[in-house]
Amino acid sequence: MLPPDVVLDPLLRGWLQEDIGRGDRTTLGLGAIAHQAHKAIWIAKAPGIIAGLPIAGRVFTLLDPHTKWVSLVEEGSGCEAGVEIAQVQGTLSSLLMGERVALNLAMRLSGIATLTRQYVDKIADLPAQLVDTRKTTPGLRLLEKYASGVGGARNHRLGLDDAVMVKDNHIAAAGGIAAAIAQIRENMPYPLTIEVETENLAMVAAALSAQVDIIMLDNMMPDVMQQAVQQIRQAQSHVKIEASGNVTLDTLRAVADTGVDYISTSATITRSPWLDLSMRMV
Amino acid sequence: MLPPDVVLDPLLRGWLQEDIGRGDRTTLGLGAIAHQAHKAIWIAKAPGIIAGLPIAGRVFTLLDPHTKWVSLVEEGSGCEAGVEIAQVQGTLSSLLMGERVALNLAMRLSGIATLTRQYVDKIADLPAQLVDTRKTTPGLRLLEKYASGVGGARNHRLGLDDAVMVKDNHIAAAGGIAAAIAQIRENMPYPLTIEVETENLAMVAAALSAQVDIIMLDNMMPDVMQQAVQQIRQAQSHVKIEASGNVTLDTLRAVADTGVDYISTSATITRSPWLDLSMRMV
Amino acid sequence: MLPPDVVLDPLLRGWLQEDIGRGDRTTLGLGAIAHQAHKAIWIAKAPGIIAGLPIAGRVFTLLDPHTKWVSLVEEGSGCEAGVEIAQVQGTLSSLLMGERVALNLAMRLSGIATLTRQYVDKIADLPAQLVDTRKTTPGLRLLEKYASGVGGARNHRLGLDDAVMVKDNHIAAAGGIAAAIAQIRENMPYPLTIEVETENLAMVAAALSAQVDIIMLDNMMPDVMQQAVQQIRQAQSHVKIEASGNVTLDTLRAVADTGVDYISTSATITRSPWLDLSMRMV
Amino acid sequence: MLPPDVVLDPLLRGWLQEDIGRGDRTTLGLGAIAHQAHKAIWIAKAPGIIAGLPIAGRVFTLLDPHTKWVSLVEEGSGCEAGVEIAQVQGTLSSLLMGERVALNLAMRLSGIATLTRQYVDKIADLPAQLVDTRKTTPGLRLLEKYASGVGGARNHRLGLDDAVMVKDNHIAAAGGIAAAIAQIRENMPYPLTIEVETENLAMVAAALSAQVDIIMLDNMMPDVMQQAVQQIRQAQSHVKIEASGNVTLDTLRAVADTGVDYISTSATITRSPWLDLSMRMV
Amino acid sequence: MLPPDVVLDPLLRGWLQEDIGRGDRTTLGLGAIAHQAHKAIWIAKAPGIIAGLPIAGRVFTLLDPHTKWVSLVEEGSGCEAGVEIAQVQGTLSSLLMGERVALNLAMRLSGIATLTRQYVDKIADLPAQLVDTRKTTPGLRLLEKYASGVGGARNHRLGLDDAVMVKDNHIAAAGGIAAAIAQIRENMPYPLTIEVETENLAMVAAALSAQVDIIMLDNMMPDVMQQAVQQIRQAQSHVKIEASGNVTLDTLRAVADTGVDYISTSATITRSPWLDLSMRMV
Amino acid sequence: MLPPDVVLDPLLRGWLQEDIGRGDRTTLGLGAIAHQAHKAIWIAKAPGIIAGLPIAGRVFTLLDPHTKWVSLVEEGSGCEAGVEIAQVQGTLSSLLMGERVALNLAMRLSGIATLTRQYVDKIADLPAQLVDTRKTTPGLRLLEKYASGVGGARNHRLGLDDAVMVKDNHIAAAGGIAAAIAQIRENMPYPLTIEVETENLAMVAAALSAQVDIIMLDNMMPDVMQQAVQQIRQAQSHVKIEASGNVTLDTLRAVADTGVDYISTSATITRSPWLDLSMRMV
Repeated sequence: MLPPDVVLDPLLRGWLQEDIGRGDRTTLGLGAIAHQAHKAIWIAKAPGIIAGLPIAGRVFTLLDPHTKWVSLVEEGSGCEAGVEIAQVQGTLSSLLMGERVALNLAMRLSGIATLTRQYVDKIADLPAQLVDTRKTTPGLRLLEKYASGVGGARNHRLGLDDAVMVKDNHIAAAGGIAAAIAQIRENMPYPLTIEVETENLAMVAAALSAQVDIIMLDNMMPDVMQQAVQQIRQAQSHVKIEASGNVTLDTLRAVADTGVDYISTSATITRSPWLDLSMRMV
Repeated sequence: MLPPDVVLDPLLRGWLQEDIGRGDRTTLGLGAIAHQAHKAIWIAKAPGIIAGLPIAGRVFTLLDPHTKWVSLVEEGSGCEAGVEIAQVQGTLSSLLMGERVALNLAMRLSGIATLTRQYVDKIADLPAQLVDTRKTTPGLRLLEKYASGVGGARNHRLGLDDAVMVKDNHIAAAGGIAAAIAQIRENMPYPLTIEVETENLAMVAAALSAQVDIIMLDNMMPDVMQQAVQQIRQAQSHVKIEASGNVTLDTLRAVADTGVDYISTSATITRSPWLDLSMRMV
Repeated sequence: MLPPDVVLDPLLRGWLQEDIGRGDRTTLGLGAIAHQAHKAIWIAKAPGIIAGLPIAGRVFTLLDPHTKWVSLVEEGSGCEAGVEIAQVQGTLSSLLMGERVALNLAMRLSGIATLTRQYVDKIADLPAQLVDTRKTTPGLRLLEKYASGVGGARNHRLGLDDAVMVKDNHIAAAGGIAAAIAQIRENMPYPLTIEVETENLAMVAAALSAQVDIIMLDNMMPDVMQQAVQQIRQAQSHVKIEASGNVTLDTLRAVADTGVDYISTSATITRSPWLDLSMRMV
Repeated sequence: MLPPDVVLDPLLRGWLQEDIGRGDRTTLGLGAIAHQAHKAIWIAKAPGIIAGLPIAGRVFTLLDPHTKWVSLVEEGSGCEAGVEIAQVQGTLSSLLMGERVALNLAMRLSGIATLTRQYVDKIADLPAQLVDTRKTTPGLRLLEKYASGVGGARNHRLGLDDAVMVKDNHIAAAGGIAAAIAQIRENMPYPLTIEVETENLAMVAAALSAQVDIIMLDNMMPDVMQQAVQQIRQAQSHVKIEASGNVTLDTLRAVADTGVDYISTSATITRSPWLDLSMRMV
Repeated sequence: MLPPDVVLDPLLRGWLQEDIGRGDRTTLGLGAIAHQAHKAIWIAKAPGIIAGLPIAGRVFTLLDPHTKWVSLVEEGSGCEAGVEIAQVQGTLSSLLMGERVALNLAMRLSGIATLTRQYVDKIADLPAQLVDTRKTTPGLRLLEKYASGVGGARNHRLGLDDAVMVKDNHIAAAGGIAAAIAQIRENMPYPLTIEVETENLAMVAAALSAQVDIIMLDNMMPDVMQQAVQQIRQAQSHVKIEASGNVTLDTLRAVADTGVDYISTSATITRSPWLDLSMRMV
Repeated sequence: MLPPDVVLDPLLRGWLQEDIGRGDRTTLGLGAIAHQAHKAIWIAKAPGIIAGLPIAGRVFTLLDPHTKWVSLVEEGSGCEAGVEIAQVQGTLSSLLMGERVALNLAMRLSGIATLTRQYVDKIADLPAQLVDTRKTTPGLRLLEKYASGVGGARNHRLGLDDAVMVKDNHIAAAGGIAAAIAQIRENMPYPLTIEVETENLAMVAAALSAQVDIIMLDNMMPDVMQQAVQQIRQAQSHVKIEASGNVTLDTLRAVADTGVDYISTSATITRSPWLDLSMRMV
């Protein structure tokens, strides 16, 4: 889900200001030439899943509302190297001042979508869904989560405020799962869900007793995980189960086979190289 | 070079707000418990080059000025997995509300420093220096460039305003290297340097005629590059030479052998996975 | 739950700037006198529930970090007229420049807490809980929701992003409850809950089929509401039930008697007069 | 007087961001459906004075400049329940993402205008004018003062900087009315007016000696107030007289009968319930 | 009157960011040396009136709260060339990163104070007071007005909102002085004053009829001005009279002799060279 | 070089807000009249060089996008008193609310351009070029530098980050020119240039040894300066030479005759009176 402009624009403006600084010495230095109309195409230079084109288009619009952007492929579509993915028309200065920010965003987001798709494809025939985490680049949370979605994953919570996640430190500080959840439940907006990280079957049992909404099975061995899944399904059919911890492309399918609902990994965001894209004036 | 607080703090505050949103429902939900004093250590979970610890410390200070942060290793030092790299003391809520932002920054920056160091080590005995590019995550330009420096690279320009970089599009629009540079030179702050991207020896000759400060040899074959270096050295001993284009760990040394002064690559930033770090309450 | 300073401070600074404008012509106009140390007490001038004292204290701290604030009563405690509720010491200018903003906040929030408590007390012996809505003063969402909590209510969602609420317009646009929810569920972060507004038993049935987390019974007659509650309890024991629509102090108890889990009303925020508080120099 | 867009827009954008947060999970979650064109009408659900329609319209414009808003009644006109007061056309997402902020503003402002009008009508045939105070919701000063004006009141000063108001604390700190005013007058912009709060006739005399522009009669008994008015009129015909303190709908007329020029009350803002308005898709 | 920190700090931070940009390449480039403690003195290099020292001190405090600033002369005192006016201690980087912004402010403000003092001294024995205008450098309104006050002038209104100033364009658009003022008076906060620009005696008469608070005599010949003064004094003893238009050091005294209360000029701000100040490390 | 809108607009909006404050009480106070269409012309009231017209136009556009601005003279052209330099059409309120900010900017910038042109003309037939400094009004760096360029000067560095400038304090702290530069060079982006301030021939020699890019001859006697120039030219033909220190219109030509490349002065910015411009409704 793309953030609406009223949320997105301040981010994009800040990023343009970061790159432009006190002005593009090269392009604006050309004087009147910089205001001539030009057209450019965007090209995928490596195969991958494209994400971020509408955002890239908005970058150019913010520089100059007369700029025209046309995406030539759908968000989330796979492209071979060499494919033209977008066209943009505007003044030379708008095109060249927006180029780097727009490309950096689209390359970063497409890189995430590309790696995410690889993970997702591994378990496409199973009910388990891949989800992301809060390990995102500071300032890019909304966009990296968006790219994760374009790649086919489900988003986990977007921040510390849209779901409760009780971890070991909370449990230790509160003196147990039951105490922690009782206290938190009293203070939280009622529609929020409560998730608890569990490391063994005893913790799973405690979480079930505490009537949580989501139980995370963290770093469990496959057989323990399977037992945990059975334990939960028997007790509370609507509780969601999330597996977490050192998930790789190799181990992903085995985890999904345990019957969990969700498998979370930060790797699709923290380990994805950028997808190579470029802009060429025509 | 770390940005001063007056520049860094607004970024860090924005990133904390991104993650915290309307409040940490879990930690603050614990009530009075959230205000108890705790201590945590930071641990490297994988071997790598550490970068960003002072920035992580500042994150906690901005949440609560009474928080105490101590880096246990120097910026840029190499760590094995399991090494304790920092300690932080403060309230539970400060530690847990700052944890993710601080870790995300340090993991991202350490990842960059780690890959950069691998590139730098490859040519440590040669005069050529590795430099970065403007392919950086939007919003993180200053910090990713800082991490690049911690890893051992030199920074290239930080934005569109602190050096002139004449590329093919500028040359085409202006009608040639000479025309472009004459026009730009007239408009630019006089202490700035002018760099020109060249793709062949004719362009190199034109750049030399135009008295530029830096000549980039872009995507040239090794033998052409070598010829270009000789051509430049003979003409203008003080002109700096930068090699660019598809540099990899494998090809890096061969490029350095051509005698260029600088080798630029975006890979250290666009292809570096995060270094795995974690925080543990003690 | 109080928002952390990193979230709260920008709001408070903006509100101080709103009131101070280009400077307090009266107090600062006194010259050196304005910098003398003074002490003031805060007094409840009418009986009510006190909310917002820590926020008021922060207002003075932001004006001058040397200011000392001491709350003399607990947040949420009931006070008679004439009770001293806080003390603050600092320079005359800090006290008088912060006075109005701090009082305005505390009076508004205490007013909400006071009316909320009246509602809450009406159903204190029943399992149903009072909840608030998104009808809050623009810019004060976090604080008015906080005051609602101090008064004894549970918070409903804090914004459009921390829970899904499917209303008649969404249903109409999507072509039915099932279609709307299927579409939304695909796009939303997985830990979020889905609430549906229903107006009759057929809609309740559709909501149950769609496996939503919360069903709102909107503006239903008591007997229909009771039937709806039974229908839901039989089908899905964990689904939460919220009653909504024209709840007043008079009708509240009857609604709670239907067995719903939550009763939402905007009245505690949109119809609560400010509680009269004042500051007196001593 | 409506603030100009350059002043209003940052407020409105902040309030939209407050409500939207990371995105409208429900409406945007509908995907392509959210971009379809819709039309909605605004309806008064209770009788009252309408205020804030142009501001509501601006909210929708900021979300999407293509949105069309038409106010169907004049600002300040009285409406019965059921009256259509505005129409708005735009995409489903613009209409539903702006709905709550726009309605919250208009309901709050109309509530103020409605109560203000009741006060104003009580003394419509007398020369005294009703004025508001600085007891306004933090962040909404400009808009609540605007609504006060729409209701028929005059605005008092908008902040601490656009008029001098010497209160008991200033007088005590400076050592008397004369000393306070002499000091302040020296430091203040010359076109500003000086108002002094007086509690008895001696203070009134001191204020007259100090050549102030406005004398506030604070919490005086009716007969004392009348004496004060005579004392001032005889001495300085152009000095404006303001009555203040516990003015209610019942006591208002008696106060006006004393011959004061202005009667200030915070009640119209601090005690006014929101006027019920709603938006209906058509 | 100095603006309070909550108003001043955002300005100062913005100005530091403007100068520092992405970091002080020279000072921070020195590495550990930049963090050593140093002491510097500020010296007046030309005779003049000093203004802005507390603001300069705040600049250094914002860079590093541990910096110590001591003003050695009073704001508004006259200094000969060579006089030490302040001391500042802190790290090398704080001193050198703040130096330029702090000096630029103090030099600009002292320049204004110096020229203002020359004007003020010309009429020191006459009742007329010098006042400034809204011709101030964008962004520095508060500080330039402050310097004007330090120099001995009175401030005129600080913006378009703290007093009404009816000029020829308003009069023309409204169809006369009476119509303009009647309309404006209805909409404005009641404590504000109304000033009217008049160009001849007929306009003065109209302004008097309209019961304005201040009458500006704009660009009148001395004898006409004198007549206008008499006309006003006879009619309304409390109306303030301001002379305006092409006032110079040479003509100032003659204008004051006409008996006006205030003489406004933009020259002290728009024509004042900076006072030369410098910082020297010791 | 004009900053792009994405950089300029936040400055302009801030400056409009500074002047407008809570609203233009006079113009907006006129009610419906304020929305009528008007046309105004801008007139030079004194001879000078015009700068800032596109910026003035942008001010009006930001107030109301429907405003139409036409510059009647080129930036940098010389005008006699009485010349019409621009036309603007829009609502009365847009024209009058933008007037002061737009004029203040254009008057300040034209003042700088006018004085700069006088300096530049003095040495127009010599190779030396005039350059500005960092002594600019806080917040106006970009625009004052722009005006300096319009006047015919070259810009020096725009901030502390776009070139290295080693001054006496850096040299002292580092223990010599060589040490300072070695340290800084290691930390700085490689395309930046290094300038050193020298006060005598020994320092010039040290700077040459350190391979700096620019040598500033600071406050040198003419004969020493000449020697320094020869020394540098013989050693490194490409090193740029800048003369600095107490340059006046009288001494400028003598300095240029020494053969330096650049002559820096702050006087064109710190000693330039505003050029008198006015707006007249037609």
